Amino acid sequence: MESPRTALEVRAATDADWPGIWAVMEPVVRAGETYTWDPGTDEATLREKWMHAGGHGRTVVAVTHGRVVGTAELHPNYGGGAADVANAGFMVAADHAGRGVARALAAHVLDLARAYGYSAMVFNAVVASNVRAVRLWQSMGFAVVGTIPGAFRLPSGDRVGLHVMHRFL
Amino acid sequence: MESPRTALEVRAATDADWPGIWAVMEPVVRAGETYTWDPGTDEATLREKWMHAGGHGRTVVAVTHGRVVGTAELHPNYGGGAADVANAGFMVAADHAGRGVARALAAHVLDLARAYGYSAMVFNAVVASNVRAVRLWQSMGFAVVGTIPGAFRLPSGDRVGLHVMHRFL
Repeated sequence: MESPRTALEVRAATDADWPGIWAVMEPVVRAGETYTWDPGTDEATLREKWMHAGGHGRTVVAVTHGRVVGTAELHPNYGGGAADVANAGFMVAADHAGRGVARALAAHVLDLARAYGYSAMVFNAVVASNVRAVRLWQSMGFAVVGTIPGAFRLPSGDRVGLHVMHRFL
Repeated sequence: MESPRTALEVRAATDADWPGIWAVMEPVVRAGETYTWDPGTDEATLREKWMHAGGHGRTVVAVTHGRVVGTAELHPNYGGGAADVANAGFMVAADHAGRGVARALAAHVLDLARAYGYSAMVFNAVVASNVRAVRLWQSMGFAVVGTIPGAFRLPSGDRVGLHVMHRFL
């Protein structure tokens, strides 16, 4: 019997993966709990944001038994003198949370970032109440280098901080 | 005799101000010392970036004796649950540095941000070697809430940190 982790493949995304990626992404964005994006953002805008068409960005998917269960994207955090620091985004299907999908995606994306010559990776806005994400990144060598106090309003109305998390590659 | 500061007017930018703004902006961007933008970015792209055409952004100029000597822009730092935190950019003509232009722009932009209902302002990437800017923001109530270590390579090749600076409004 195959374990879910063994069956997981992480590979470059293609245009054909978009419907599967969107199925993962839409509920995450609509929930408005973990991304600093308008929860009402339309599919075309999000597709453009997530599906990097070459250049300095890359998009990957985690696939198990033919289904996209997670996705990630890698891009330069800023330009100019800061262009060798990467940023990345990650999303996992709710019914696959806690099965190592995010960790597998992160390991892949960190390898990609090293291969592209990035010297570090930073997340600018990790919602502090997203404890699962904060712990995952800490376990993968990221440190909270600062927190923007109360900068994120949850759908409940509660305000939480936004962590800046960083690691060298 | 009029002091330079008395003669300084800070007002909303119009399309007609662009050549004056560009004269301030071009050397700042080309120098690559203080902004996390590609120093080779073309004028049209920078104009689009800086000149907010309504919506949630605003662009202002500081004018003295008919000349644009500084400019600033205000926009939401992120979207969704973070949309009520502002971000802003500031540039001053080199021959007007140290004359209160940035401070006058900042005071104006902070008032604008309050008027638009923002609850805080954040700068994501203040180059640590830009001591004049760091001191100005600290004197205006901003605190360094974190530093991304070595995330900016100066034209000299030296690496410096990028400060995240924040204040509530």
